[in-house]
Amino acid sequence: MTDSIPGFFAVVPAGGAGTRLWPLSRAGAPKFLLDMTGAGRTLLQGTVDRLLPLTGPGGVLVVTGARHAPAVVAQLPEVPAQDVLAEPSPRDSMAAIGLAAAVLEQRHGDVVLGSFAADHLIEGAEEFARTVREGVEAARAGYVVTVGIAATGPSTAFGYVRSAAALGVEGAPSVRHVAGFTEKPDEETAAAYLATGEYRWNAGMFIVRARTLLDHLAAQLPALHDGLREIAAAWDTDARDEVLARVWPTLTRIAIDHAIAEPVAAAGGVAVVPGDFRWDDVGDFASLAPMLPPLAGADGASRTLGDDDLVVRVGADGAFVVPTGGRTVTVVGITDAVVVDTPDALLVTTREHAQDVKAGVDAWRARGRDDLL
Amino acid sequence: MTDSIPGFFAVVPAGGAGTRLWPLSRAGAPKFLLDMTGAGRTLLQGTVDRLLPLTGPGGVLVVTGARHAPAVVAQLPEVPAQDVLAEPSPRDSMAAIGLAAAVLEQRHGDVVLGSFAADHLIEGAEEFARTVREGVEAARAGYVVTVGIAATGPSTAFGYVRSAAALGVEGAPSVRHVAGFTEKPDEETAAAYLATGEYRWNAGMFIVRARTLLDHLAAQLPALHDGLREIAAAWDTDARDEVLARVWPTLTRIAIDHAIAEPVAAAGGVAVVPGDFRWDDVGDFASLAPMLPPLAGADGASRTLGDDDLVVRVGADGAFVVPTGGRTVTVVGITDAVVVDTPDALLVTTREHAQDVKAGVDAWRARGRDDLL
Repeated sequence: MTDSIPGFFAVVPAGGAGTRLWPLSRAGAPKFLLDMTGAGRTLLQGTVDRLLPLTGPGGVLVVTGARHAPAVVAQLPEVPAQDVLAEPSPRDSMAAIGLAAAVLEQRHGDVVLGSFAADHLIEGAEEFARTVREGVEAARAGYVVTVGIAATGPSTAFGYVRSAAALGVEGAPSVRHVAGFTEKPDEETAAAYLATGEYRWNAGMFIVRARTLLDHLAAQLPALHDGLREIAAAWDTDARDEVLARVWPTLTRIAIDHAIAEPVAAAGGVAVVPGDFRWDDVGDFASLAPMLPPLAGADGASRTLGDDDLVVRVGADGAFVVPTGGRTVTVVGITDAVVVDTPDALLVTTREHAQDVKAGVDAWRARGRDDLL
Repeated sequence: MTDSIPGFFAVVPAGGAGTRLWPLSRAGAPKFLLDMTGAGRTLLQGTVDRLLPLTGPGGVLVVTGARHAPAVVAQLPEVPAQDVLAEPSPRDSMAAIGLAAAVLEQRHGDVVLGSFAADHLIEGAEEFARTVREGVEAARAGYVVTVGIAATGPSTAFGYVRSAAALGVEGAPSVRHVAGFTEKPDEETAAAYLATGEYRWNAGMFIVRARTLLDHLAAQLPALHDGLREIAAAWDTDARDEVLARVWPTLTRIAIDHAIAEPVAAAGGVAVVPGDFRWDDVGDFASLAPMLPPLAGADGASRTLGDDDLVVRVGADGAFVVPTGGRTVTVVGITDAVVVDTPDALLVTTREHAQDVKAGVDAWRARGRDDLL
């Protein structure tokens, strides 16, 4: 199980500002570039750490915005600079992953690629590896394979994938057909999903042959397909900049879920490999906190990202404190408080209101304080 | 009404760390030395500003700890340095006010003195002046006069004074006998008090002839009286330091309420002058906030002590923010939050838990972080 998977490449889309994690995550330093758990590795580095053993050296391609490409290259000495693809501007996930698929096909032929976001947290490397290996086998058989995470509760923060009959592909015993995808449900609906035993969280991970993906794209969105192929053909040539400048701005902005996963699932072409590792997309502080280690001597729910010697809690069980400013933080009487202290911006909220942080960011933007964003 | 009152001196005890106002108020910079309202004057300066017109120049005596005497002198250029009495160590309010009374008697004879804490907020200078003038007339007639503040609600944070029949002293038409004092009551009891119409808040202000005070002290606590008289006799001589060093540490620690007000009231020697000005002892952030001006465009209860351009509130009506650190503060989803941001210490609580701030200070002390206190 520790060998790399022949013909398998990983694509890591590294984008997204992580606005709900402001002021820790900023436009200039988004969450994938940050160590969000105090583990000593950024989310991007942790993602690549998980993938490189599966692909082998030279098997990880990162797609990121031009603004962040230098930081990505600097954080990943084990990834050659030519494997960091810089997008001139954000065109959503289909363009990002489609570009990577087309470049991989150009360079290596019809390999299998797996797409794994740069800003998710995963615990359980062995189970992750098993999941990917099974997914790759199903992808070789021509399926678009998504990873279905074992739900730990009726979350309203994620979409769900519904499984149908077993696929019956050799080497992929747990992979099943996909009956369909759902958007983020309300809690009642989510609970009903889980009661059926057929639903898992859709983690937005895809494993697919490059040619399978590009063929589906050609059928669904031929202009986008043609544009990406044209860019890929020029990528490793002197024409790259000219072609990028001309073609990239014309590409359709669409998420890969809408462009490929949903229509292909309806036609029976999508499979789901169950992943029983711990996963979170770290969408806000309420989801980040439980991913951190418990504090010695504190209630079970309190967390500190940073030096807990800087934190005093009084009647504030479950308080999540990020003392990056070096200042002491004293929380009195607010259960599940969230306090994020940075040198120029302090955020005070609760886990319950973690999703509303975006409104605070919007307020600063409206005041013209772009320096804070 | 703008003339000063002949033979009237003001005594301003300036002590108390204001622990519940930490980290704004510190041991090294207690609240009386701070501008707690953004008005541009410290609480001590505001107190002296109110009193000097009533006493005339040279009529205000400040009693403070030796540690703070230089800061007091620096903040009060209109008060001669000899009128700032420095206590070698804290011996509670009876020693502080008794010392001032004895020094005043030594210097000026049997004058009337009024004692007004350095760290209270008062609005309504004219009504305050009227109150003091009436109180002085009653004091001249031999009474210990306390000020009874018109309660704005059944506060549990203050003691109450109960009034009895009118005193019938000329020039003091609203002054009444005192039937007794109460400690801080629970809310139900406080409401019952107010329903009688006989109770007012005990603001801890006293107006009394120096000799009346010292005679009561001689009767109640003769050793304390003798010690203070001995110190006062030496105060303006070369022997001051020697006498202070020898006698001061022997003085009984007791509050003036217990030493004089309560026993003398029981004997019929205390009167109350009603004060219908707005008063608060600024005991914690919950009591400080309403003393600040409302914010334009915000809900009625939100307050900022400092630059409100640094503050964003989202679903946080009533949030009280003190952005002294220059950093921006974003409060999301916590009604009545209290956020006090200073360069080395950040406090996050709610108005409801404002009294519990002391426990946070205690926690830092237990950790040996005396630098924060």
